[in-house]
Amino acid sequence: MALESYFPVWDKLTANERELLKQSAVRRILPKGTLQSTGTDGCIGLLVICSGQLRAFIVSDEGKEITLYRLFERDICLFSASCMINSIQFDITLEAEKDTELWIVPAEVYKMIMESSAAVANYTNELMATRFSEVMWLMEQILWKRFDERLAAFLLEESNLEGSNVLKITHERIAAHLGTAREVVTRMLKHFQSEGLVELARGTVELTDIKRLQELSE
Amino acid sequence: MALESYFPVWDKLTANERELLKQSAVRRILPKGTLQSTGTDGCIGLLVICSGQLRAFIVSDEGKEITLYRLFERDICLFSASCMINSIQFDITLEAEKDTELWIVPAEVYKMIMESSAAVANYTNELMATRFSEVMWLMEQILWKRFDERLAAFLLEESNLEGSNVLKITHERIAAHLGTAREVVTRMLKHFQSEGLVELARGTVELTDIKRLQELSE
Repeated sequence: MALESYFPVWDKLTANERELLKQSAVRRILPKGTLQSTGTDGCIGLLVICSGQLRAFIVSDEGKEITLYRLFERDICLFSASCMINSIQFDITLEAEKDTELWIVPAEVYKMIMESSAAVANYTNELMATRFSEVMWLMEQILWKRFDERLAAFLLEESNLEGSNVLKITHERIAAHLGTAREVVTRMLKHFQSEGLVELARGTVELTDIKRLQELSE
Repeated sequence: MALESYFPVWDKLTANERELLKQSAVRRILPKGTLQSTGTDGCIGLLVICSGQLRAFIVSDEGKEITLYRLFERDICLFSASCMINSIQFDITLEAEKDTELWIVPAEVYKMIMESSAAVANYTNELMATRFSEVMWLMEQILWKRFDERLAAFLLEESNLEGSNVLKITHERIAAHLGTAREVVTRMLKHFQSEGLVELARGTVELTDIKRLQELSE
């Protein structure tokens, strides 16, 4: 559970940088249900997740939410330290969906290391690009695809046909049924899994929340 | 029109890095109407815009478009070099909306410099954060706000009242009318300006495309 085993590019840090991280990082447990806003007021630092699950979402003025992505073990949350990058001009909210154990690296410490270490700065770039890609994917879904509806409908139909909630079917096969690429199916199934709708295992898709799949498909 | 006057963090580069950039960057003119896709096939390099205007957009399978943001003089396009950041998992399309003069820094050259220079890597971070913020703003608009409709309707109403297409009104005052913050009004007016709907000057908003404002407000 040591920080070095969770922190990427650790081997590219100088001895000083490692020492600084070790001394400044603090271990915390966020009990299930904890909410944490980011932005100037909530710039608590980089979160390095050891166990548990965080949901990142945005909220409208009227209180409507939309989930942007989820963070699991070994994921790193950058936006909880968004004050260290001037051009981040939006806020998100984090919710611990399970009791979540994590390291918090203070934003000013991470920023200092990032400014002198190209390795850390480039890693941060990859991190932001990952989240950016997730948000772009979500936006395309919202705008155009509704592939989630089609996939949910297909899974329910198959489940009825087979008389079982455990479908023995490959992602490839589902893709063929729905006239799309395997990668698209895999990505949406993983999204479904993170939403608790299905459970994935090798060669099978288990439908774990029929009710919500039905709502989605309608 | 030398590269160094357009390239940020030039003063933080080593002599070698400057030399490398100068030798590898090429000057191009993209005639109005030129389309350029990004992604693996279109990884042409970092675009440093000297003059003109580029539109970045995404396209659905059915050919529907949505504009993500626009790039003007001194802006830099990162996604035309997206192959240098592994985690960028989406493609966009660029369209020259005017004849556009730019420098192209080959992706492999920029990547090499970024890997060794913390200054360049951090600059790249800021650049990505800027685009990310623009996309987040757009997503919130699409999901919830429809503030564009309300603002368009307000501007048309004011124009009718005043009997003029040039409104003498501050952003502060518009915000008060619409029950929102000045920053929100300023941002949307700039968006309108980039879409050619209005022309902004100190203390005035000129309505330059009444027809499209009417379509928007309906």
